[in-house]
Parts: sequence; C-alpha cells; structure tokens
Amino acid sequence: MPPFDVPEGDPFGPHNLPYGVFSPAGSDERRVGVRLGDHVLDAGAAATALGSPYASLLARPSLNPLLAAGRTTWSDVRRALTAWVTVPAHRQTVEPLLHPLSEVTLHLPFEVADYVDFYASENHARNVGQIFRPDAADSLTPNWKHLPIGYHGRSGTVVVSGTDVVRPSGQRKAPTDPAPVFGPSVRLDIEAEVGFVVGVPSRLGRPVPLTAFRDHVFGLCLLNDWSARDIQAWEYVPLGPFLGKSFATSVSAWITPLDALEEARVAPPGRTHPLLPYLDDSQEEPGGYDLRISVAINGHAVSEPPFSTMYWTAAQQLAHMTVNGASLRTGDLYGSGTVSGPTERERGSLLELTWNGRDPLELPDGKRTFLEDGDVVTLTAWAPGPDGTRVGLGEVTGRVVPTTLS
Amino acid sequence: MPPFDVPEGDPFGPHNLPYGVFSPAGSDERRVGVRLGDHVLDAGAAATALGSPYASLLARPSLNPLLAAGRTTWSDVRRALTAWVTVPAHRQTVEPLLHPLSEVTLHLPFEVADYVDFYASENHARNVGQIFRPDAADSLTPNWKHLPIGYHGRSGTVVVSGTDVVRPSGQRKAPTDPAPVFGPSVRLDIEAEVGFVVGVPSRLGRPVPLTAFRDHVFGLCLLNDWSARDIQAWEYVPLGPFLGKSFATSVSAWITPLDALEEARVAPPGRTHPLLPYLDDSQEEPGGYDLRISVAINGHAVSEPPFSTMYWTAAQQLAHMTVNGASLRTGDLYGSGTVSGPTERERGSLLELTWNGRDPLELPDGKRTFLEDGDVVTLTAWAPGPDGTRVGLGEVTGRVVPTTLS
Repeated sequence: MPPFDVPEGDPFGPHNLPYGVFSPAGSDERRVGVRLGDHVLDAGAAATALGSPYASLLARPSLNPLLAAGRTTWSDVRRALTAWVTVPAHRQTVEPLLHPLSEVTLHLPFEVADYVDFYASENHARNVGQIFRPDAADSLTPNWKHLPIGYHGRSGTVVVSGTDVVRPSGQRKAPTDPAPVFGPSVRLDIEAEVGFVVGVPSRLGRPVPLTAFRDHVFGLCLLNDWSARDIQAWEYVPLGPFLGKSFATSVSAWITPLDALEEARVAPPGRTHPLLPYLDDSQEEPGGYDLRISVAINGHAVSEPPFSTMYWTAAQQLAHMTVNGASLRTGDLYGSGTVSGPTERERGSLLELTWNGRDPLELPDGKRTFLEDGDVVTLTAWAPGPDGTRVGLGEVTGRVVPTTLS
Repeated sequence: MPPFDVPEGDPFGPHNLPYGVFSPAGSDERRVGVRLGDHVLDAGAAATALGSPYASLLARPSLNPLLAAGRTTWSDVRRALTAWVTVPAHRQTVEPLLHPLSEVTLHLPFEVADYVDFYASENHARNVGQIFRPDAADSLTPNWKHLPIGYHGRSGTVVVSGTDVVRPSGQRKAPTDPAPVFGPSVRLDIEAEVGFVVGVPSRLGRPVPLTAFRDHVFGLCLLNDWSARDIQAWEYVPLGPFLGKSFATSVSAWITPLDALEEARVAPPGRTHPLLPYLDDSQEEPGGYDLRISVAINGHAVSEPPFSTMYWTAAQQLAHMTVNGASLRTGDLYGSGTVSGPTERERGSLLELTWNGRDPLELPDGKRTFLEDGDVVTLTAWAPGPDGTRVGLGEVTGRVVPTTLS
C-alpha cells in the first residue's frame, strides 16, 4: 500500500501529524519531519516543492523556529500539512518525500531550554508518601493541594527515545549503614510522564495566566523521568532531587500538537480545596487530557497509567511556573510528574508497582523490583481523536546499560 | 592618562583581563570585550587588527566559542591578550579599540546551558539549620559532610548585572495561617555566591574526575541568587526550591579566567569526615579560592563573606555533579551556594544577617530585615594577585522594582 494511503484507523493518520526531526538514510542532515503512518514526511522539502510560505519554518534542522512562530501559525501550518497529505492533487509531489520510519534516524526534535518536572498525580504523591512516610497523618504534604509542586531538572541530559541509559553511580546510605557507600544504583526506576513543550516565550517579570496556556504551549510528548531511588533518597533533603534524576530524561521523538488533541480534553478531577485565583480553573475550558499510557518492560505490559486522573493541569502548571515573573523560552519543557491512576495496574513507577521492592513484578523473563541492566522500558500512549479515531503519541523507549566508571 | 596606562595597583590591570560581551556606544552589536582598568578592549577587533589566529574565537557576539576551545587555547589567548595590552609596539593599534566602560552596554557574556546551585558553606548551612530547625540535634542534615548538596535552577532567568529584579509574587503560608495567601514576597533576600562557568563539554555517561576540573571550567563570576524566603518556605518540601529562586539570578558581566587566580588558590577547611574516593581531594592541589566578597545595600557595606571558608570546592562540585554520568555543556553555570564566614559580619544573606528578621540591619536610610522596593544590592570582590596586586572580580548589582501583577 502506498504511504499516502494510511490504513483506516491508523493512530498516526492525517488527523494526528506529530512533528519530529529526522535524518534520511545515509545522511547526517537534520530535517523537520511529520509522521504519517509508518512514514515520515520531509516537511521542509514538501513546503518548498509546493511553494508554501512555511518553507522557512519547516526547512530547518530543529522544531524551534516553528515552536516560536505562535498559535496562529501553528494552526495554519497544520492545515497546510493536512492538505498536503490528503488532497489527491498533491500526491505526486508529496509521495516521493515520504521516508519509511524504519530507514530514518530520529533526533531530539527541539533544543531544550529549561526543564521542569512536576508532581501532579494525587495517586502518585499519596503512594510515595505512604511508602516513605508511613507514620505521617496525611500522605500528602500540606502544600500539595494548594500548588503544583515542581522543581528544575537538567535540560542537558534530555535525550531522545532510543538513547541508551547508562546506569548511574552515586552515593547511597541505608538508615542502618554507618556511612554512605558508592556504586551503581541498585534501585533504578522509571517515571511515566507527559512532557509539555513551550513554543512562545514570555517576558521576565510578567506572569502567564491560565487563559494564555494555548498561546505558549505547542504540544506534548511522552517522557520517562529515569530515577535512581537510592541516590535520590540520600541526597534530596533539603534541596530536592539532583543526581537521582539528572543522568537522563527520555522524550519521544514526536511532538503531538495540542491542535491534534481537541477531542481528548477532559475536566480534571474535582478539586477538594479552594484554589487561589491564579490557579482557579473552574471557569475555564477543560484543562485535562485523556491520554491512555502503557508501560512495558522488555515488551511486557506492566501498567496503564491514565493521564486523565492528574490533579493539576498543564495550564495550571504553566501559570504557577511563571507567577513569580519567571520568563519562558522557546524549547522549555515541563513534565507532568509521574502518572499513576487509582488502581495497582495504573501506577507509573516501579517504586509504586512493587511497593518499594516489597512486591516484585512477575515478568516472563523473571522477577523485577527495580530495573536490571539490559532492560528495555517503553512508554506508548493514545488519545481519543475525531470520529472515533485514536491519536497515537510517539513512543519513548530506552535500554539500561551498565555503569561506566571513570 | 591614556587607557593603555592602567594605574599601578588597579585591580583590573593587565594581570587580570576578565572577559565579557559589550556593545559600543550607539550600537546593538555584541562583541567579546576584555576589561582593562575602566576600559573595555574590543578583543575581536584587536585580534583582527593584529592578525591573530584567535580572531575567529574573539570576533563573536558571545564567549561560547572561546569557552568551548579548551584549556590550552584559553592560556594561549590570555598570553596573546596580555601582550596586546602591554607591549608598546601594539599601543597604536590597540588604544583606539579601548572603549570607556561608562560608554558601553554590557550583556550576559555567555549562553547559559544548565544552572546548578550548591550549598557549600558550612557556616551558611548551620545558620539556616539553626534558624529553621532550632530543635534539631545537628544543624546540618546527615548528608551535608558527605556530598556537596545541590539542585538545578532556572537558566532562562540568569540575568547580567544591572538588570532590574522584579519583586516576585507567590504563595506563602505562615504556620498559623489557615490557608496560603497570594501576594508580592515580603521576605525578598539575596545570596552572595561565586558562579563557575563550564567551557568544555563532557560525554553523557562519563563522570568528570576531580583532576579534570581545570580542563572543563573556564572561569568564575560573582552571582546573586535572589531568594524569596516566604515563597521558598511554603513550597520547598519535598522537591526543593522552585519559585522562591527562579525569578532571577544575577551574574557579573565579567568572567574571570581561572588562569588569573593562580595566586588566590588556598586549601579548603580541614575535612571533618572521610570522603568517598571521587570527592577526596586530600592529594590534589589546593581547591579553594581566596576571594574577598563585599555585600552592599544602597552603597552601604553590610557584609564581607570570605570565599576561602567554603567547605566544598568547585572541583568537588563538578566531580559530584557528573558522577552519575550527567554530561556537561559549554555554558553550564554552577553557583557555590551562599558564602558565609564564621562571624556575624561575614554572612552572605539577609536571612542570616538579620537572623530571619529578628535583628534588623541599621542602614543610613533606615532599618532592613529583608529588601524593600528600590533597594540596590551590589556584590564586589577581589583576590590576591601576583606581586601583591589585587585581582578584581566584576561587580554584580541589581535594583528591586515593584511586582508587576498580571
């Protein structure tokens, strides 16, 4: 079947059109690509061939120029792309510009400016609280229902799906150890998240209100916030996670524009506490997204975290992140925090899935508490699309390789 | 006196030669500049005029190409610059390329990649512990003497000296408040720090050992890590500081190369706890720097934090930051943490200087607990140089302006 004819029901059909950056077979050149089924359209070449005014945004080695172009242009470019891959008159021009996915190399699709990670799943936060603070009166910290807790991570170690993840070494200390010991992490974990990609910058000193979310955020991706629980536990008081997280954060190669996810919008869970005005979304359009995530280890599904259960929305996170006047840059990336649903098979980390190692997972290739060298972790997801279709999110996958000691 | 003839004893004499980026009067063009007394040498123009092979590194709008060039080149360029501003034969060529400092605009001298902030002063950490955890058995957390505690900050809001700082708004909640309130911070503070600038990148998965510090780190600057104590106090458990810090971090316009600070190297304080091998600097050259910092509010000196008292060195911080395999990029910036000496007049934050507001400072223009709108905070510093000279560090200054509410 020719690539123009994506099979009916393909989650990467013309209703989706996520953006990435690829190199064709045998080339190092980076080009903006748009996924169509199991092919990649060379978007810059198509724009040039069709005389589109968007060639200057698309014939680039990164998504950054498109990200910076703003909401109206994002919609216009998407409309143009939809025509290019569906209108029969374009077929002869466009078909030669479609590359089989299996033949291209996919790259980190944008230059990551700042990376922030949130903690927005109530189920996740309660599970973590119960695991680490079993005697606390409330499994949530007192601030949790009043603000979306977040922190800055390392943007220089955000890597594209498919990149190997070297097991980190570091200090750890069990409460019973007399002193910390050094070595490869023995509690390497994942965190299944969704990442939001900022396109349009904001001015220093000027908060971005809830209502301006769509003017600044271009799209989303899947994100695996690899975490070394033993390193994190010893280092994180009082200034938060550092080396337990900074060794790698994997993102999918495809950025799904928010315009492709209109049918996936849902109301977030009911709020149990009154919100300060800058976070109060009760009068706004639904801020949640119904994304159905799957987590697989070595091809074996272990969890299905439902993004619709997230307490804090991406719009609230953006409003909070800037309410102190912090400015946004094109390429800022923020993670939702681990997505965990209310049931045991909906948890987005091994910490929760194995209850801190107490209840190992039974996989076809053996038991797992935390990750072993060689394990491949893959996150996939889909969202409801128009007319009963599914909108696929690009997968994020990575293999754990042994520590390289200096 | 012609600019070539810097007065004897000038802390910005030809023994110093810090790097920055400036625009000449009436121009928006950015150029690499080298400070000489109260003038700025247009380094790229000088290199071009003198036929230097370094013109390609210096005739640039940012220090990044020079930073990436590596240690041998850093030394070679510095040697060339020293000759250009001292050898009489160059005078006729170089003098027209010196711009009075008062006539140029100074810019952020490099593109900040990741920004990390440490917490390396034992006096500061103990003061903070006593203020916030008065009942704890030890004012230091159990990990403090085993690793240099750090966290990632927001690189997109690193601003150059002279940039106004908008008072941040945010949530705060006193223990006695029934719910958080929103408004401009009422406990806006400073943190007097030294920032280290990474030049040469490292590979993902490969730690950078203590001994490679000088191969990667180009130089240092003064840094003011503005902090909203009320916002920070409510938000920081469990994931660390976020909006209490992310609104602005000011750095000096001048980056002092480590090569200018050879005479300032000192041994750090004696270690009270054995260190794991990757942090053990007992067999290394002295890792501390004898930098004498002054903090002034509205021109009135309030403190003189001694950098030589820092427990953790910049080399240890670099080794720790990468021991998990996290890679470095050109332009990575890391702050030392607040510099506080053992005595009351050596503390690097108002939190400590006023003991959390209990003991206001008496300034000529009134009492201060935390900063008021209109206050100008200026950090300056010098280090011992060759033959009894002083090496001046570029000042970092900023004025607090009122909150802009959205």
